[in-house]
Amino acid sequence: MTEGFADRVARAVAATGPLCAGIDPSSDLLDHWGLEDAPEGLRTFGLSCVEAFAGVVPVVKPQVAFFERMGSAGLAVLEEVLGACRDAGLLAIADAKRGDIGSTMAAYATAWLDPASPLVADAVTALAYLGLGALQPAFDLAASGGKGVIVVVRSSNPEGRSLQEARTAGPDGDPSGPAVEDMLLADIAALNHGGLPVPGTVGAVVGATRTPSEFDLAGLGGVILAPGVGFQGGTAEGAGRLFDGCAPGTVLPNVSRSLLVAGPDVVALREAAAKECATLGSALA
Amino acid sequence: MTEGFADRVARAVAATGPLCAGIDPSSDLLDHWGLEDAPEGLRTFGLSCVEAFAGVVPVVKPQVAFFERMGSAGLAVLEEVLGACRDAGLLAIADAKRGDIGSTMAAYATAWLDPASPLVADAVTALAYLGLGALQPAFDLAASGGKGVIVVVRSSNPEGRSLQEARTAGPDGDPSGPAVEDMLLADIAALNHGGLPVPGTVGAVVGATRTPSEFDLAGLGGVILAPGVGFQGGTAEGAGRLFDGCAPGTVLPNVSRSLLVAGPDVVALREAAAKECATLGSALA
Repeated sequence: MTEGFADRVARAVAATGPLCAGIDPSSDLLDHWGLEDAPEGLRTFGLSCVEAFAGVVPVVKPQVAFFERMGSAGLAVLEEVLGACRDAGLLAIADAKRGDIGSTMAAYATAWLDPASPLVADAVTALAYLGLGALQPAFDLAASGGKGVIVVVRSSNPEGRSLQEARTAGPDGDPSGPAVEDMLLADIAALNHGGLPVPGTVGAVVGATRTPSEFDLAGLGGVILAPGVGFQGGTAEGAGRLFDGCAPGTVLPNVSRSLLVAGPDVVALREAAAKECATLGSALA
Repeated sequence: MTEGFADRVARAVAATGPLCAGIDPSSDLLDHWGLEDAPEGLRTFGLSCVEAFAGVVPVVKPQVAFFERMGSAGLAVLEEVLGACRDAGLLAIADAKRGDIGSTMAAYATAWLDPASPLVADAVTALAYLGLGALQPAFDLAASGGKGVIVVVRSSNPEGRSLQEARTAGPDGDPSGPAVEDMLLADIAALNHGGLPVPGTVGAVVGATRTPSEFDLAGLGGVILAPGVGFQGGTAEGAGRLFDGCAPGTVLPNVSRSLLVAGPDVVALREAAAKECATLGSALA
């Protein structure tokens, strides 16, 4: 049987500790690293991150937008960075936040999850504004290859609260159903517990800056990607409290900017990542 | 003063009639056109669409996913197709449905709306799951250049209903506020009526398969992109009823698959597009 994405992540976390290290070549960070804001700068940044993180973190998350802003030349660099992740044994989540319907969603799934695609990653992030069901082509392709789809559910930023906390309709049509975010979490849990042929295929983004919602995250059955630690004000201890009860290896705090400022020195970046992994490992133990 | 995106669209619609013609090089349509499912097939398909649609439709909408599925090579073709649109005087909406926060959202805005980007279009579609406010970097960049951001609000597919119809919190915290979709429409209208320096910058996707919601679309102040006509079951007459009262030139029904099957003959595709434009023009008059 195909090993599901959540099991692959748990195995990697057991070896190194829980951390999803961002690969975010923003103009700002390229400047901080003394690199040109051009494809060659992206390339040096991305490959240095892979070199620094290999063996010390389980998962990396290239932010697609920072490559896409340079068009096809930027995406060619991302292909190279994703290839370097595979060679280094780093699991890669393409942070693309794609979302569409039907054959269009299937095309996004092909881009990020088909082993024959030059952009293939181990998982891709997705937005469910068009309904979780609209993402089914990505869930199906992911499950068939032991890959993951990580759906943004409770984002770390304040602007999403009114939408994510809106109440869905209950049985009689009144807004007595769960909040949008809890509806999505329950539907993701159902996919992980029998709704898809491979358990652990669908994960959720739950900001480490949030307090718990009604849904018990320990029952999600998939990877929880938790942005917001560091630059956005979340702490390792806060993440520990929020995700109390979740199985070891299922929670991946994401740290990007506050870690990446340790570069461009690869050894310094590696040491900073190892330290962050250890801190988060203690907090989530 | 910069001419806003809505005015640019209205001017183009006045010349030809209201239609946003999709450029959707899916595997399926490439096969129908006798083209290889490879970058060269994408290129022939895209450039033939531009040739067929120039002068007979006001706006085209390349579906980014169908290019992205071929990675950087696919995106290089999209750059060429977008350049051909500019040369042909066709307004182009990049259907990318991007959505993120902060510097990441700013990077997506750069990719699709910065005149210096190889992927620059006249507008880009966006998803607001992270909150409409999170899209602000794109609104700001769009406004500065007379470009548009078209936010998916009421999608044409059934899977999005429970989320888009969920009720937001009212003043006392009860779910007595507007539905998510109506909250977004009201917030978009506020941006178009003084919230941004250039009116008509922010548009909305409202499926032509839907019935009216509480928000009066005539007050949106931005472009309404209406997918669902044709393949998904919406009709020109239905669109006319749904958008009754909206100013001429503000509603752009989107037709993709049911039009594109008229190819690969460029003359046949051009005639089909002109006919569709005329039909929609009568229905929306």
